[in-house]
Amino acid sequence: MKKNVLIIGAGGVGQVAAHKCAQHNRQLGDIHIASRNIRKCLAIIDSIHEKGALQDPKGVLRAHALDAMDTAATRRLIEKTGAQIVINLGHAFVNMSVLEACIQSGAAYIDTAIHEDPTRICEAPPWYANHEWKRKPACAEKGITAILGCGFDPGVVNAYAALAVQEYFDHVDSIDIIDINAGSHGRYFATNFNPEINFREFTGKVWSWQNSAWTQNRMFEVKRTDTLPIVGQQTSYLTGHDELHSLSQHLNVPNIRFWMGFGEHYINVFTVLRNLGLLSEKPVKLDDGREVVPLQLVKAVLPDPASLAPGYVGKTCIGNLVKGQKDGQEREIFIYNVADHVEAFAEVGSQGISYTAGVPAVAAAVLIAQGTWDVQKMVNVEELPCKPFINLMNAIGLPTHIRIGNNQEDMLLSFELDEQAQEA
Amino acid sequence: MKKNVLIIGAGGVGQVAAHKCAQHNRQLGDIHIASRNIRKCLAIIDSIHEKGALQDPKGVLRAHALDAMDTAATRRLIEKTGAQIVINLGHAFVNMSVLEACIQSGAAYIDTAIHEDPTRICEAPPWYANHEWKRKPACAEKGITAILGCGFDPGVVNAYAALAVQEYFDHVDSIDIIDINAGSHGRYFATNFNPEINFREFTGKVWSWQNSAWTQNRMFEVKRTDTLPIVGQQTSYLTGHDELHSLSQHLNVPNIRFWMGFGEHYINVFTVLRNLGLLSEKPVKLDDGREVVPLQLVKAVLPDPASLAPGYVGKTCIGNLVKGQKDGQEREIFIYNVADHVEAFAEVGSQGISYTAGVPAVAAAVLIAQGTWDVQKMVNVEELPCKPFINLMNAIGLPTHIRIGNNQEDMLLSFELDEQAQEA
Repeated sequence: MKKNVLIIGAGGVGQVAAHKCAQHNRQLGDIHIASRNIRKCLAIIDSIHEKGALQDPKGVLRAHALDAMDTAATRRLIEKTGAQIVINLGHAFVNMSVLEACIQSGAAYIDTAIHEDPTRICEAPPWYANHEWKRKPACAEKGITAILGCGFDPGVVNAYAALAVQEYFDHVDSIDIIDINAGSHGRYFATNFNPEINFREFTGKVWSWQNSAWTQNRMFEVKRTDTLPIVGQQTSYLTGHDELHSLSQHLNVPNIRFWMGFGEHYINVFTVLRNLGLLSEKPVKLDDGREVVPLQLVKAVLPDPASLAPGYVGKTCIGNLVKGQKDGQEREIFIYNVADHVEAFAEVGSQGISYTAGVPAVAAAVLIAQGTWDVQKMVNVEELPCKPFINLMNAIGLPTHIRIGNNQEDMLLSFELDEQAQEA
Repeated sequence: MKKNVLIIGAGGVGQVAAHKCAQHNRQLGDIHIASRNIRKCLAIIDSIHEKGALQDPKGVLRAHALDAMDTAATRRLIEKTGAQIVINLGHAFVNMSVLEACIQSGAAYIDTAIHEDPTRICEAPPWYANHEWKRKPACAEKGITAILGCGFDPGVVNAYAALAVQEYFDHVDSIDIIDINAGSHGRYFATNFNPEINFREFTGKVWSWQNSAWTQNRMFEVKRTDTLPIVGQQTSYLTGHDELHSLSQHLNVPNIRFWMGFGEHYINVFTVLRNLGLLSEKPVKLDDGREVVPLQLVKAVLPDPASLAPGYVGKTCIGNLVKGQKDGQEREIFIYNVADHVEAFAEVGSQGISYTAGVPAVAAAVLIAQGTWDVQKMVNVEELPCKPFINLMNAIGLPTHIRIGNNQEDMLLSFELDEQAQEA
């Protein structure tokens, strides 16, 4: 049983997580938000008060300035705040320093995306083994609960994959994770989260797990078109993504692929930028002799993802299409969530993409606080009990539905659990 | 009668001008090349020796380091070299400082493009009145020959406009200057000269002279398709351009427009960059606090225009489509030049776009050296005798052809002139 939460990062996902933690502060205790830019933390606190989101209005809610690349400073802040749970929503370069601060201080660690080295795009698979998993022995030795990749994807889709393997099939042939944002922000072009991190997903090789081996493709080389619940017919492209790198190691499934939906306009803009070299992480020299990383300039000219939220309309649909056999029959299921940009903004002041990433991280914090997920070692989400997680998300804003076969009615997925898990 | 030439600028056009001056150094005397980067000047000198281009092999050919924004340094170099003719092919920001150095030292001044203030895009028409023409009284007073805009366009097309008005029509209704590059450099995307200057032509308002008044359009708003000599059917877009701003003041023609050919791919890349704000001349702030001008970064990632020359194939066609009346009949003529990228590279080591800009500037230098164009005041090309210019260019690499009406054979345009002008 742990309590008091330190959220690191005050972008769109940080905003969602702070609101959701506030809504559950009787269980979670004090809520702290830290960022390099303390004004962003203060703005989030203001928005929480505006919405009256604190479950216990007398609960502690506080902002802190922090450079999360600085392990010692992060450890001091953890100790000063008494936080036993750290939700790391900073950019992808700080995972290892924040994790180290948690190991040193004994706090539980949660993140939503894989660690990245700023100087390298697309390392060798499995990605987690390049950084996070090297700290597994340290976590085990000190009894540190570290839950890696607990946003929606990676995160919830890992739970869906585990659930499919455990409950719905005797043998699974393939898991296709499909991520569609059918919403519209009304701008000429924008990324839904930090452009620097967003583009890095698409500029390297596309790794996928096929026939039980790592397979390479180029971005936008392979596509599929599906008719999906609510959002209808959508085209998505084979994309490299974090969750393949843990699911391939933890589940005995020969084909695990990730597909991300893109419109033609997005692909055109992306292709122009990439072909011109404007998405490069390698510095170029200007006429005046200064060195500039093109991707950082592109980030500077694009809209701040947080600024998209007020005008965002439409829905997301993210889920796992799983194929295999059950009781001697071929079977196909689609386990998914549909989120609404307008509803997300009304509730927490962020758009739907941030909402789907932030809510699962808070669900993980609640499950750690309850003890259900306080496993005192480093795990990916598919290694944890998935049913209490899915039940809890049904209750706090991200309900899971399932479609079995082609002609079935979709239904809400929820589970009868013993008392401890039901508390969620 | 003047001699000894100082070429300022060692880009692709500077390379062409240096080769052409070398080919005529018996008339032009010593040839000096200056640039901020002296190594570029030395490379040009090497290429002149490689081609054996010096007409008088014992002639002086020398490189100098110069910051042409520094008027005093430019004046000192003019005086040290004894140059009586300065061909300014530096970037568009140095015109006024180089012109001032010429006024102070008594040298003749030639340039090929209008002065630009680095901080402002698209000033009020007529553009020359914002900067260069303010120095007309100073040039007249000191007897300085200053020939503005003597590349191909502006430059040769101004001579074509004057010729049409003087020789081929009783009344001219319209002059449409059409600039087509039907060549291919084989790269994903590149500009044919300095990207920073190139894009500035298209990011501001499109000014044209219609019904004897300045008219505004947006870039790529108005297009036309013509079947042109050699290059065939081509689409071009109404574009703002230097020559409209002098021709509208010097010729009594109610419609003068400039059309530049663009392929769909160019327009797509340009549109993406512009809409993202990447063509802006206004600095943006990076995460690390540094300010960077997006256009300067785009320049840094694009190919160096000089690097395109070796692989460039195909031809350019630039000319004036003139409509009006002659002897009571409606008449239409097209006066033009076709240049070949491969031939340009073989002769002077540059691509055809640089070739068409550099050769007319050297023709102007030769005509000043002969006295024909040594007019001891500031002029645009349409104010000078056009026939010796056209004859000279026939001889030195840019022959002019004319098509009269729709069904006529095209023919080489050349003129019988008195002895002095024939020397060319």
